[in-house]
Amino acid sequence: MESLSVALGSRSYPIHIGADLIGSPGLYAPHLKGGGAAIVTNAVVAPLYLARLKQALAGARVTEIVVPDGEQAKRWEVLETVFDALLQARCGRDTLVIALGGGVIGDLAGFTAATYQRGVSFVQVPTTLLAQVDSSVGGKTAINHARGKNMIGAFHQPLAVIADVGTLDTLPDRELRAGVAEVIKHGFALDAPFVDWLEKNIDKVLKRDREALIYAVRRSCELKARIVAADEREAGERALLNFGHTFGHAIEAGTGYGAWLHGEAVAAGMVMASELSSLMGHLKKNEVSRVRDLLKRAGLPVKGPVLAPERLLELMSVDKKAAKGKTRFVVLESVGRAALRGDIEEALVRQAIVAAAQ
Amino acid sequence: MESLSVALGSRSYPIHIGADLIGSPGLYAPHLKGGGAAIVTNAVVAPLYLARLKQALAGARVTEIVVPDGEQAKRWEVLETVFDALLQARCGRDTLVIALGGGVIGDLAGFTAATYQRGVSFVQVPTTLLAQVDSSVGGKTAINHARGKNMIGAFHQPLAVIADVGTLDTLPDRELRAGVAEVIKHGFALDAPFVDWLEKNIDKVLKRDREALIYAVRRSCELKARIVAADEREAGERALLNFGHTFGHAIEAGTGYGAWLHGEAVAAGMVMASELSSLMGHLKKNEVSRVRDLLKRAGLPVKGPVLAPERLLELMSVDKKAAKGKTRFVVLESVGRAALRGDIEEALVRQAIVAAAQ
Repeated sequence: MESLSVALGSRSYPIHIGADLIGSPGLYAPHLKGGGAAIVTNAVVAPLYLARLKQALAGARVTEIVVPDGEQAKRWEVLETVFDALLQARCGRDTLVIALGGGVIGDLAGFTAATYQRGVSFVQVPTTLLAQVDSSVGGKTAINHARGKNMIGAFHQPLAVIADVGTLDTLPDRELRAGVAEVIKHGFALDAPFVDWLEKNIDKVLKRDREALIYAVRRSCELKARIVAADEREAGERALLNFGHTFGHAIEAGTGYGAWLHGEAVAAGMVMASELSSLMGHLKKNEVSRVRDLLKRAGLPVKGPVLAPERLLELMSVDKKAAKGKTRFVVLESVGRAALRGDIEEALVRQAIVAAAQ
Repeated sequence: MESLSVALGSRSYPIHIGADLIGSPGLYAPHLKGGGAAIVTNAVVAPLYLARLKQALAGARVTEIVVPDGEQAKRWEVLETVFDALLQARCGRDTLVIALGGGVIGDLAGFTAATYQRGVSFVQVPTTLLAQVDSSVGGKTAINHARGKNMIGAFHQPLAVIADVGTLDTLPDRELRAGVAEVIKHGFALDAPFVDWLEKNIDKVLKRDREALIYAVRRSCELKARIVAADEREAGERALLNFGHTFGHAIEAGTGYGAWLHGEAVAAGMVMASELSSLMGHLKKNEVSRVRDLLKRAGLPVKGPVLAPERLLELMSVDKKAAKGKTRFVVLESVGRAALRGDIEEALVRQAIVAAAQ
């Protein structure tokens, strides 16, 4: 098992990464304070891992809360059933909420923990690669609103994250690749040597080689943790983690949420952002090729959907990261060095979209 | 105008107390960051003070959100309409939420600010005495759940509190007195000299003498702020602020919420808690009389409702402050010195309830 720390002062917490961690009682014991645990999971994950997790909590009072699978669980009606189950089981302020599942469960259970009786403790057990490398660092929790994704939420740091790469064995290929997109993003945005490593080891990662997975998860978490430590509330530097996301969100919105997985949209978005970086004179042609080639090898889309560039531009203009009317983009100054830019001509963005489609 | 600071490190904030502050542009300007303001208020307060507040924000984009009056506004369905209004008005993360009203509005608008787009800034303009002396200090926000009051919430500190005692001119007498109950509580629980001051000045406070009100609000806020600074998340010392509340909550629950105002129930609860303190050998008989006499002069109830002591005991046993099966009580070791005790025989508590009814 490897462990790293997300340094956030009194809210610092460890991320434990390894194989077969779910069933380790010692990882949960320090966080159980007599109030028992409430496990929030979904109908797909529960049959796979709930029994193993419960066994590791032996001795503690456990409340099981199983919600429907999928993004539609991130809404108030489902949250309300979670609160109801907690209150019915008379869970107090000393209850430990455990999120067992992917990003949706992490967001839902995390927001539950942030707001149940004005906040209770929280441990995350992410069971998808995306959740292990992305939502396990940073404390973002949220549910959706009819008018927008993640519009209602809170920053609520977990006490610990237990990333068991063994759970990735049951992850569908397409979801594994979508998680790899975020791993690749961390490399190109923040760390050139990690890009080198990925270029050498991407096949092992895709074959779910445990050692390779552990390294990929650990390095991703380290890189994200460094950023989050410097900018917990997303005031500045944290925006660099959105490399590929401004384009990616537009792709998701333009195709109707769900058709493209988030990681797939970010993959195509990274190619567009790289072309934009090249048009601005930062990234060399062969560096754009490195982005494209690595994504291709990971089985990820490198071209956007069949949408007019004008439609994507329009969708980006309403992106919530727009500040004072101008859409901001994360560009690459070089491989491993992202920068936030808000002064880019729309014509150049259109040109980048067209270049990415070639 | 007088100002004091609630010392919470990077979350410290000022409370400004005075007459005719609502209309002072200079109190809001430092907190407006280009995203405009969203004022959350209710149907009773809006006609009285909304125009004056809006005038003070002249130049800023203002979204008005008027919710129904009363405790029933503290539920999800109403919160949902607030989120909807914010999203429809395209309010971003740089929006300043302003709570204009009493405790219900403070709780609702505060929880809105805590969770809208994972947290936006928040200024409180409390227009009841209770809200000025109680909910303006400490950052507690919440809505109710069908299974319990304040079950869903967050700690979210405001950027500033603007306590305009001029707004108390329009407060019904009964609500003014309910606020005075919490002022008296701060004295007996925390500060003997403040009890002396109240014994001399209670009539002025009830006549809404502005100088007396300003002093009463300021001293109450100072006392509560000292406690909150030491225990922001209510892990220990902050429980002392619950003097009279264990009994009071049982009175509220036993009579059906709404029949007794919170302050009225706390008043009768303080007499019970004082009798209990006396039975335990801490408080002298004449000190119990000081509690009773001051509450009487303030027009507050000093006897509980017609409920069997057994019923009150039963209701207290489910109080959420119960820790590991034992109900904890805040008792007075002397006037101005409260202490938390969890080892009290039920028979003694019953005796205190009976003594308070004499």
